[in-house]
Amino acid sequence: MKNITIHEVGLRDGLQMEKMHVPFETKAAWLQQLIDSGVDIIQIGSFVHPKYVPQMAETDALFRQFALEKSRPDGLIYSGLVLNEKGLERGLDCGVDMFCMGVSASETHSMKNTKMTVDEALPRIIKMAHLAEEANKSVQVSVQSAFGCGFEGPIAVSQIERIVHKYVDAGLKNISLADTAGHASPAQVEQLLETVLKIDNSLEITCHFHNTYGLALANCFSAMKMGVTIFESAFAGLGGCPFTAVAGGNVCTEDLVHMLQRTGDCTHVQLNSLLNLAKETARFFSREMDGKIYRTGEITYQNK
Amino acid sequence: MKNITIHEVGLRDGLQMEKMHVPFETKAAWLQQLIDSGVDIIQIGSFVHPKYVPQMAETDALFRQFALEKSRPDGLIYSGLVLNEKGLERGLDCGVDMFCMGVSASETHSMKNTKMTVDEALPRIIKMAHLAEEANKSVQVSVQSAFGCGFEGPIAVSQIERIVHKYVDAGLKNISLADTAGHASPAQVEQLLETVLKIDNSLEITCHFHNTYGLALANCFSAMKMGVTIFESAFAGLGGCPFTAVAGGNVCTEDLVHMLQRTGDCTHVQLNSLLNLAKETARFFSREMDGKIYRTGEITYQNK
Repeated sequence: MKNITIHEVGLRDGLQMEKMHVPFETKAAWLQQLIDSGVDIIQIGSFVHPKYVPQMAETDALFRQFALEKSRPDGLIYSGLVLNEKGLERGLDCGVDMFCMGVSASETHSMKNTKMTVDEALPRIIKMAHLAEEANKSVQVSVQSAFGCGFEGPIAVSQIERIVHKYVDAGLKNISLADTAGHASPAQVEQLLETVLKIDNSLEITCHFHNTYGLALANCFSAMKMGVTIFESAFAGLGGCPFTAVAGGNVCTEDLVHMLQRTGDCTHVQLNSLLNLAKETARFFSREMDGKIYRTGEITYQNK
Repeated sequence: MKNITIHEVGLRDGLQMEKMHVPFETKAAWLQQLIDSGVDIIQIGSFVHPKYVPQMAETDALFRQFALEKSRPDGLIYSGLVLNEKGLERGLDCGVDMFCMGVSASETHSMKNTKMTVDEALPRIIKMAHLAEEANKSVQVSVQSAFGCGFEGPIAVSQIERIVHKYVDAGLKNISLADTAGHASPAQVEQLLETVLKIDNSLEITCHFHNTYGLALANCFSAMKMGVTIFESAFAGLGGCPFTAVAGGNVCTEDLVHMLQRTGDCTHVQLNSLLNLAKETARFFSREMDGKIYRTGEITYQNK
């Protein structure tokens, strides 16, 4: 099994739904702890209008401080999510290394999110991706709601195939398959990846799972068995709306790293740093987070 | 992927650590709900001395009522755990269909549990298994702590191999690999099953996982990929000590069934009956249970 790349998205996908504002200094401190943990890619924020997502108001300032002013460990990549050309400009201005952008596979989700159909959104995203590449930036394009949609239900595999084909035809091979609604199950992950990898088996696939129904770790394992080596995850299992019955957060970074380290994978990440950060996050929000290992601790033995 | 057999062990492994006594009538009502859900095998209890495990005091009476007096759905099997010859006698007396018994792969665990070394316990268990077979009963023999021990830590694969060899040599092919401590991770499950199935690929392997570290569903999926089709699970995710940091319960039956049904497996089980039972269990114990789906509900779509 190849070593795994952790793309930490807690500061973006994790925080964007949180009603309690996390001050700049706290975000910066958490970001520093993520850097110290040794994760490979850190998504610092998204370039949306602060009117729509107030939690993301500090994205440019955080990027400026960490990507332009401070030194950083070798190889660490800072990613940012962009939704439109204005966001791309902002990101180019403040030191984004990797631009993440995408379309939804669900027409309903696409209309609600962007007021565009999938076929209207696709050429626009592909054009933005090319602009970012021309500026010598890495690009990751995504297919959101790839495993089902909270509005529409199951999404035809042919729809995901069609979008991936368009990306590949446009020369975009770094593709994230996102389970926005948390509907994926491990056997389904296997089936979809088999289909997608048939299009082009040199694709660099990232998987992005939510733990709404407790399946995120099982889905990661299933994806790994299919050859996926890059995962988007959030510290403490942040993400989703904390005011619903059960928060449908991202797969929890420290729980994923803990699982992988049990068999000698992902040893470049300092699990303890992540556990401390998760504990701090739980204290900050004054609630139990979705992550499990920050509560149980790593597996230990009574005789040792 | 073959269809999956659910061996429900909540009434035994789930309840044995619970301090609050569940009255006979409640146990009988829960058992009836399990029967109605359509699970394949139900473990009604263990034949231990009530002094040691007061929660199991009603085992004989429950068996008598359900296995001897009441009619039951075609094919439904009632299993009981036995630790010694006395338990076997009691079980033969009250209608047990399948006797479950086993040894621990951990010497420390074996000594603490049975005051015997693994090599002392093995011939005794094998003899009991043969006695049960002579009485025309099904037998399942287990290897406890097969994936690691809370006292000793990792257990050598050769130790599990050695025990399985002894079982196979004794003609015992229905073998449960139990992750008593919840230490298993999916890649490890794969490796151990590969080794065990090399001994004899006609073995009927059952896997028994605990969710202490959030890995139970991922472990089930991994085992399924290796060809395992029988799982021991507990409704509501019961099991383990509820007074520790995080209850290390059994893999949750309804969460497992929910995962499997997403891709058309395990459709013979009525998920709704299990969700109702889990809700009732949470009310009975006045606490949130480890299961997730009884809180989120099944995946649904807003447009439908």
